[in-house]
Amino acid sequence: MALTLYWGSGSPFAWRVMLALEHKRLAYTSELLHFDKQEHQSPHMLKLNPRGRVPVLKDGDYVVFESLAVLYYLDLKYPDPPIFGATPEEAGVIMRVCLEFQAYAEPSLLNICEAVFGNQVQGRFEELSDALHVVAREARTIEGRLSREQWVVGQQYSAADMVIFPDIQLLRRALAKPQASELGARFLPMERNYPALARWIARIESLPGYERTYPPHWRESA
Amino acid sequence: MALTLYWGSGSPFAWRVMLALEHKRLAYTSELLHFDKQEHQSPHMLKLNPRGRVPVLKDGDYVVFESLAVLYYLDLKYPDPPIFGATPEEAGVIMRVCLEFQAYAEPSLLNICEAVFGNQVQGRFEELSDALHVVAREARTIEGRLSREQWVVGQQYSAADMVIFPDIQLLRRALAKPQASELGARFLPMERNYPALARWIARIESLPGYERTYPPHWRESA
Repeated sequence: MALTLYWGSGSPFAWRVMLALEHKRLAYTSELLHFDKQEHQSPHMLKLNPRGRVPVLKDGDYVVFESLAVLYYLDLKYPDPPIFGATPEEAGVIMRVCLEFQAYAEPSLLNICEAVFGNQVQGRFEELSDALHVVAREARTIEGRLSREQWVVGQQYSAADMVIFPDIQLLRRALAKPQASELGARFLPMERNYPALARWIARIESLPGYERTYPPHWRESA
Repeated sequence: MALTLYWGSGSPFAWRVMLALEHKRLAYTSELLHFDKQEHQSPHMLKLNPRGRVPVLKDGDYVVFESLAVLYYLDLKYPDPPIFGATPEEAGVIMRVCLEFQAYAEPSLLNICEAVFGNQVQGRFEELSDALHVVAREARTIEGRLSREQWVVGQQYSAADMVIFPDIQLLRRALAKPQASELGARFLPMERNYPALARWIARIESLPGYERTYPPHWRESA
């Protein structure tokens, strides 16, 4: 089947799917949409996903979106290597950790990133401090997991790593901006505050195919 | 394996899992926790789920929580009848619809319900009107699906129905309260405004085992 991924540079949701495609060594056509030109809202894209959001994966005539559903589909359709574990028990834990991250860490994390990239930190400092407090609590839980194991769930790279990693990279990028320096000092450098997470980031960055998943516009503007 | 479900009366998340257990005809020990006595935050429960939330499913020594992860685990472990479809393609759509509902409808829906049950409608009327607007938009999409098919995704009762149904029941209950009458008039009666959804509710209410899943305290206080 011919796989086509519609994605946008810097979308953590799209990045998840790219990590899965690389890990499963699946060849795919890459359709990079430019958010600034509203290409994700084109008539063609709205026909694929009426919400106009990425990622959207086409597999032949079949269309799937919502990043976690895409990971789930890919794992059922192309099971080797698995990204939701080898047993129902492992699968349940991996899915649970993905859902916990999305429910308890991600809303606060994305609020921070949007505020930083939208240059709104000053006016919202208290709210963003609270949000970072929430994120830090979840990060400590993940740090605990990664201080015992190589990967977020157990001994294999899984959907849990793929879901969490792009958000952490986005947060690091946001908190390294000058306008976020006061917030950033509470979280960064990760090598000091979250050493196991920092080692895990380096581990993923060294995976085969990782460079192809890296947001292209992040290279241009450091 | 001995299944034990820890749940609370009226938790839509726990209700999802009960619907799945009934549909799969799995025998389980029911451990009803009383929220008003903080039983979901007991040391025993916090050991099973540090967030102190329900549902929690034990299967022998194995523990899983986050309702969608529980549904996923149950379907892998006890696949007949399936609740995530018969093919990867169906599974992807069912998971996608579950995740869309959780991302785009549920936060607004739960805000409304919490405000109504907490008697805060008056002070937050504008915000709740906006929230109901969001919910109504998502409900129209589901209405469209149900006007073409018997179930939310395709021709079989699935996890998508199990995820959405308890939230809709909770919303109906909230909007029928006297303090929500003005909001309620924009959504109810569902028989008039969302006829396909109303028929779908009746369809689920007539399923075998449904009565065992109905929140016990809803019977006591009409």
